Amino acid sequence: MGNLLNVGLIGTGFMGKTHALAWRNVKAVMGVGQEISLHTLCDMPEEKARATAVQFGFANATADWRAMISDPAIDVVSITTPNQMHRDMALAAIEAGKHVWCEKPMALTLDEARMMEAAAKARGVTTMVGYNYIHNPAFRHAQRLIADDVIGRVVHFRGWVDEDYQADPDLPWTWRARIADAGLGTLGDLGCHLISMAYGLCGPIDSLVADMQTVHETRPLPDGTGRGAVENEDTATALVRFANGVHGSVASSRSAWGRKNKLAWEVHGTKGMICFEQERMNELQLYTNEGPKAQQGFRTILTGPEHAPFGNFCPAPGHQLGFGDLKIIEAAALLDGIASGTPPYPDFTAALEFEKVIHAMAQSARDGRRVFLQEV
Amino acid sequence: MGNLLNVGLIGTGFMGKTHALAWRNVKAVMGVGQEISLHTLCDMPEEKARATAVQFGFANATADWRAMISDPAIDVVSITTPNQMHRDMALAAIEAGKHVWCEKPMALTLDEARMMEAAAKARGVTTMVGYNYIHNPAFRHAQRLIADDVIGRVVHFRGWVDEDYQADPDLPWTWRARIADAGLGTLGDLGCHLISMAYGLCGPIDSLVADMQTVHETRPLPDGTGRGAVENEDTATALVRFANGVHGSVASSRSAWGRKNKLAWEVHGTKGMICFEQERMNELQLYTNEGPKAQQGFRTILTGPEHAPFGNFCPAPGHQLGFGDLKIIEAAALLDGIASGTPPYPDFTAALEFEKVIHAMAQSARDGRRVFLQEV
Amino acid sequence: MGNLLNVGLIGTGFMGKTHALAWRNVKAVMGVGQEISLHTLCDMPEEKARATAVQFGFANATADWRAMISDPAIDVVSITTPNQMHRDMALAAIEAGKHVWCEKPMALTLDEARMMEAAAKARGVTTMVGYNYIHNPAFRHAQRLIADDVIGRVVHFRGWVDEDYQADPDLPWTWRARIADAGLGTLGDLGCHLISMAYGLCGPIDSLVADMQTVHETRPLPDGTGRGAVENEDTATALVRFANGVHGSVASSRSAWGRKNKLAWEVHGTKGMICFEQERMNELQLYTNEGPKAQQGFRTILTGPEHAPFGNFCPAPGHQLGFGDLKIIEAAALLDGIASGTPPYPDFTAALEFEKVIHAMAQSARDGRRVFLQEV
Amino acid sequence: MGNLLNVGLIGTGFMGKTHALAWRNVKAVMGVGQEISLHTLCDMPEEKARATAVQFGFANATADWRAMISDPAIDVVSITTPNQMHRDMALAAIEAGKHVWCEKPMALTLDEARMMEAAAKARGVTTMVGYNYIHNPAFRHAQRLIADDVIGRVVHFRGWVDEDYQADPDLPWTWRARIADAGLGTLGDLGCHLISMAYGLCGPIDSLVADMQTVHETRPLPDGTGRGAVENEDTATALVRFANGVHGSVASSRSAWGRKNKLAWEVHGTKGMICFEQERMNELQLYTNEGPKAQQGFRTILTGPEHAPFGNFCPAPGHQLGFGDLKIIEAAALLDGIASGTPPYPDFTAALEFEKVIHAMAQSARDGRRVFLQEV
Repeated sequence: MGNLLNVGLIGTGFMGKTHALAWRNVKAVMGVGQEISLHTLCDMPEEKARATAVQFGFANATADWRAMISDPAIDVVSITTPNQMHRDMALAAIEAGKHVWCEKPMALTLDEARMMEAAAKARGVTTMVGYNYIHNPAFRHAQRLIADDVIGRVVHFRGWVDEDYQADPDLPWTWRARIADAGLGTLGDLGCHLISMAYGLCGPIDSLVADMQTVHETRPLPDGTGRGAVENEDTATALVRFANGVHGSVASSRSAWGRKNKLAWEVHGTKGMICFEQERMNELQLYTNEGPKAQQGFRTILTGPEHAPFGNFCPAPGHQLGFGDLKIIEAAALLDGIASGTPPYPDFTAALEFEKVIHAMAQSARDGRRVFLQEV
Repeated sequence: MGNLLNVGLIGTGFMGKTHALAWRNVKAVMGVGQEISLHTLCDMPEEKARATAVQFGFANATADWRAMISDPAIDVVSITTPNQMHRDMALAAIEAGKHVWCEKPMALTLDEARMMEAAAKARGVTTMVGYNYIHNPAFRHAQRLIADDVIGRVVHFRGWVDEDYQADPDLPWTWRARIADAGLGTLGDLGCHLISMAYGLCGPIDSLVADMQTVHETRPLPDGTGRGAVENEDTATALVRFANGVHGSVASSRSAWGRKNKLAWEVHGTKGMICFEQERMNELQLYTNEGPKAQQGFRTILTGPEHAPFGNFCPAPGHQLGFGDLKIIEAAALLDGIASGTPPYPDFTAALEFEKVIHAMAQSARDGRRVFLQEV
Repeated sequence: MGNLLNVGLIGTGFMGKTHALAWRNVKAVMGVGQEISLHTLCDMPEEKARATAVQFGFANATADWRAMISDPAIDVVSITTPNQMHRDMALAAIEAGKHVWCEKPMALTLDEARMMEAAAKARGVTTMVGYNYIHNPAFRHAQRLIADDVIGRVVHFRGWVDEDYQADPDLPWTWRARIADAGLGTLGDLGCHLISMAYGLCGPIDSLVADMQTVHETRPLPDGTGRGAVENEDTATALVRFANGVHGSVASSRSAWGRKNKLAWEVHGTKGMICFEQERMNELQLYTNEGPKAQQGFRTILTGPEHAPFGNFCPAPGHQLGFGDLKIIEAAALLDGIASGTPPYPDFTAALEFEKVIHAMAQSARDGRRVFLQEV
Repeated sequence: MGNLLNVGLIGTGFMGKTHALAWRNVKAVMGVGQEISLHTLCDMPEEKARATAVQFGFANATADWRAMISDPAIDVVSITTPNQMHRDMALAAIEAGKHVWCEKPMALTLDEARMMEAAAKARGVTTMVGYNYIHNPAFRHAQRLIADDVIGRVVHFRGWVDEDYQADPDLPWTWRARIADAGLGTLGDLGCHLISMAYGLCGPIDSLVADMQTVHETRPLPDGTGRGAVENEDTATALVRFANGVHGSVASSRSAWGRKNKLAWEVHGTKGMICFEQERMNELQLYTNEGPKAQQGFRTILTGPEHAPFGNFCPAPGHQLGFGDLKIIEAAALLDGIASGTPPYPDFTAALEFEKVIHAMAQSARDGRRVFLQEV
């Protein structure tokens, strides 16, 4: 590939657009040396691919993802399609020796994800899964605060991730409700993001006990012929134990009215606490048991150039990054991984661990018992 | 007792003072017809009782709680001593035919609490346990919103109650760390308050799975001779299922730096959500799926005279009640119970249910299995 | 009066009740040595006075405030009636040698207030005006932070005080709209509270330029005969210069929808900033340019026993004082003033300065020019 | 220019980068038909221009802005240099018949700005000034709410814009302190942004009375030879009257510790209120006097696809736009203006009005009198 990295992107929806923009901007924003070429955009039907390629600035368009993946000119493939297609696309790309940037969750089932991970390892390509929230400068700063012992030894963790896109009981039934199409429910859509943050803050989870519930058990079929069953979970909650001895809990709901992206957590330490919520993604809450008691309080840290790589976007603190900006930082991590040979984080191997957790939650909820991650 | 209710109060500490003030003010604030006489204040040593009786406005002082309880002039006994003394005091008061206002938790063990409940029922006296937070006009309004179907059918509950009074690893060992003296840890101090709110919002809990942890396993002995074991839990978390089918979780920590009274919850409904946190006890957060989507959002309701009985304190909204004010409302509920013969809420029978839950959490954590409340 | 202070209270409305409760509780809460006797309650008609005296615990009731004031048994008079009666009552009480606790504003006009101040000074009685918000432990802590140089030299001040009790254009006309009955509008009701805080934080104001506006120029007459003119201001704003060289601004509106008690300010210093808002009266926001830049942020300090005299109410931080509690602290300051002979703050002399400011604002707005306080 | 718009960008600093990214992304994000070519990047020295051109994706680089502007291939010029260069660059570009996108403020003095405005009008080119904050979907939604009468007739306005980049007294003296180099102080840097929002919400300002202050009157010279005078203002505040009769106030400080981008305002209406602060730029606060009083409260609206053009960035609400995204929306407005011939908002003519206000504030503060905008 020389110094030109040719990108093939599959999907032009929500995440497809963020990948396209990340690829467009990673060099300009992050100052990476790597030249990026927006080589081919793939979507169906082909007219849509062509029109969107013009809009996004891709040189070529296709409706045939297999053809694109097998094109020798392509160096890296972004996979942003619905989850049930991730496996085949990722396996094909890996087989073709391409680097892969795949949206989360990796696949519908853990078996599929394992297959993808094994293939990538065997073939030696660089992979990355789209856990964008852990690339937030606020999150990275939280990790630094913990590493620098600012809150002491971590002793407890709590996390939540809620949205309301399935809160309305009158929403029609869609493929999201069928396990064969969607896999897990709120855990796959939202829960795994929370797990990626939990791992980044407290390390691997060792075991858990979970409960889950389908709040809206049926939904009206769109064709008016009755009601269809919702097979996967609307809510899921687990008591977790991390390998380092920290206890905590994680919870997720896709039926939580008013929550738009309430991915939030708090890390309790022996000297302080850090809290975060994605709906205010440029803020970090920090409490430390320092200084006069009468002046202690949670402080709201607004991210800025002190919190790398915020300064790549803006030299002024308090001026706010957006959701799409996280994807640019993520792309830089992928590029760094490709260039250095050191896997970016999280590659398929690391991300597989997150996805084990959500599947362990489902298993625990089904079986009514504690599940150890090592058995998953 | 005619129209004069003679009060005997045991304890002059944190809660003792709030009881004294509640008795002093319940008529003036709430306009109840009942005349209250601050008859006798009991503490040890007697000089302290005497001095505090003068301050609080009690007519008599004693260091002998048994004598006070057996005084025929006394109609109602407030018990605000450390928890390990609740049982004997309550049983003696009940036996003497007094009404009892006892601070939470009822007792160190569930057996003790059961004994108290049975005695009260047998003797027919009016009892009340000091679950002050459920008397907050904000809380009562939340209950009304749910009853009025403002958020639809309740489908999920989450609650937390955290403080940081045991967060510092260097705090010396105290009796709070010994089960024989303190019973449960964070569950007894804090957790039961959360359960009282959970019951008020979602009804009885049917079963749960819990985990708990002693974060600081030993503490320096105050006499400098080494370190003493902390026998009870610093943190506890449970997955709960309510009898009405609602799922959820509850969590408590006494080692959560920065949290001073973070008793918080959220109730998810099919049409909206209500959230609350005690550190901002005059606010309620409400989201409803109503009106134009572009104008929807969580609204911060500031309590005021629209939220009875706020108006008894102040006719102006946004002017804030304080912690002590909740105790005045609570006293009015007790008086109403005494006058009407209808048990105030929560009497020993109702409060026993809350305390079953925290003991069930401890049992589940110890046994590593789901515990059904009916088996407790 | 020996060690018994006999209180006469005029008025049983919003502020009357808070005075009654303050007198009831100041000894019990604050531990002052002074015995308080709730001697006589005055309101009209006499039946109302009698019924309320029973509720509030006053020994006597009357509808004749002149008789009460001239009763030799009375030591101190609380005046909580509508503003237009303050002057006559205060002058009578002063003449009778009573101490006076008068609600703000002192009077309808500055001339009346001056008369009251001169009379009090001449007679040597202790006086106090009900600027309750400056007795908040959070406010006192802010003053300490400034005195301790925590935010460096103060360089700027901004304050606001808004409510919405006159926001609805359809509210009927009342006496509040007539200058002869009400004097100033939002400035008298709300603005003077803000000025009391500005003085406590930045010292005396030297000059100002103001603007004011009657937003709703007429209101429907309650008898349906048409519309009556609103003579006084709904909003008022001023650019202020303090004697110490600090510049700033103050603003008030009684027509600000959604604001229930939005008395808020921020003090800018050379090393930090402090912010406060009364709707969250148990919180103080503090920013200091200290420690690593990456960890700086506004911290939310929850008041607690570290912030005297919070501990007199509750030994637990984050457990919240209420509006009424401020009045108890205020009463203690008055008692201290009576006992010590040192005027409590603010006595009629100090409070007159606050009221000069609001009248100076009105004058500046009318004349369209800068007004110096020394000329008022 | 056919369907290809050739962009020349002067400046590669804070705002230069945002212009570069806006030009890079406006088509991809906003779906505009216009093809954009990043033709030439200009900065000094030329090596810097060349390196940055590679990073940002510009085809050519130069250190000679006059040459670039006179290049017939260039269609539109972005001016993002320090303010003192805006005039000459804009005049040259206009003379050359280029469209101009100029950062705010237009120029150091009002005379310069007028000259630019007149030239643009005479030459008929399309111009736009970089008032990015008014392109925020949250802001546009606020405008729609007002237009749709959601808060009734607007009756009052308050605005603030504070940062702390000049709060530290020990910061060395820079060109920012000299009027000849920087023009106004906080008013030019920050204040004009607030005015752009005030105009968007309440329309033109008719007259004002202002005060301003240099908080830190001297600063240490960087060469250690003593202290240099700070000639322009650190703080400025004005009482404003809008042409439509609305009163209000605006304030700005560049010395406000802890404020990073505290551009905030509130609009009071007869039926409700809207509030906003840029540090939480994806939120809008809305209060309306609707529905049961007991359920009223300020609601926090999280922007999402309901608030165009948020959906061009992300179909999921609560997922946050960033500062840079505003610049993309702004670029789309400029493109629309170029294509349609209808001036984008704010063009030089509209922006001149904002800048008149900040100069009127300075004049009022200097002269100590009310200034009418028509006389400026």
